[in-house]
Amino acid sequence: MRQTSFANVNCSLAQSLELIGDWWTPLILRDVFMGIDKFDDLAVDLGISRNLLTSRLADLVENEIVKRVRYSERPPRDRYVLTEAGGELAPILAALTAWGDTWTARKSGPPMLFRHKACGHVMTPQVACSHCGEVLNAANLEGVGGPGAKAGPGTRVLAKLLSARATR
Amino acid sequence: MRQTSFANVNCSLAQSLELIGDWWTPLILRDVFMGIDKFDDLAVDLGISRNLLTSRLADLVENEIVKRVRYSERPPRDRYVLTEAGGELAPILAALTAWGDTWTARKSGPPMLFRHKACGHVMTPQVACSHCGEVLNAANLEGVGGPGAKAGPGTRVLAKLLSARATR
Repeated sequence: MRQTSFANVNCSLAQSLELIGDWWTPLILRDVFMGIDKFDDLAVDLGISRNLLTSRLADLVENEIVKRVRYSERPPRDRYVLTEAGGELAPILAALTAWGDTWTARKSGPPMLFRHKACGHVMTPQVACSHCGEVLNAANLEGVGGPGAKAGPGTRVLAKLLSARATR
Repeated sequence: MRQTSFANVNCSLAQSLELIGDWWTPLILRDVFMGIDKFDDLAVDLGISRNLLTSRLADLVENEIVKRVRYSERPPRDRYVLTEAGGELAPILAALTAWGDTWTARKSGPPMLFRHKACGHVMTPQVACSHCGEVLNAANLEGVGGPGAKAGPGTRVLAKLLSARATR
């Protein structure tokens, strides 16, 4: 049910959305991350049609975000697990979940919290600078031009702006 | 073009997607964050119909992720800026952009990079633990039950799993 494909948009956010931006897909990834990894369990948890779930899982497998692992030969049964690429999405989706806790809060409180197993604390996933570790926000974060910046569909104005910021 | 609404899904990721999960919406937020803040510039940059852009911006304004700021009275003209809630999405979308740089890389390299203004470095936005600062990944991150966990559409299996993890 997409308006259009982002395949030809020269932007890595658009490319990420091309892979995981379909309605329901992030919730499928949430479930697989949480260990809800069998087709029937996913269908029950999400309450979506088997056709839709089949289609979304096939896309995720084709794009190497999720992989099938056979856990029974008779009858043949697969479970779904995150690939390395899929695993790197988990903290990002966790950060988006925490954003939802803050900005769409319900009286009953967050349905789900996150624990950092290494330090043992229930904590908030937050986006930080890879150089100094400081937490990023809209005010201290700036987009600048990269080597691949190019004007085209979805970047007609942005590319000029990035180009100006790359050379200053 | 949604399959369905996530309004009744008791999950903060679903609620976040209800607000920003529409096709095109994250790219509109990318542009507003980058300072492409006028209707005509957004329409040109993204190459989407004015009707669709009007609808998406109205949703973002209604949900208080973006706000209109009048910059000209004659003729009346508004620009769009991120609210506090919208500003907190910027680093998360930046992390998703960096994921796309890694996993959907093109030969020409990343179109856009990020600079942390406070330390001055071009860096990678990464999701870290709010308690100890360590970078999170799928292996060291765990979802646990929160006070609002409840079985329902979109959480029929998940809620049981969270409930089990909340009590151990």
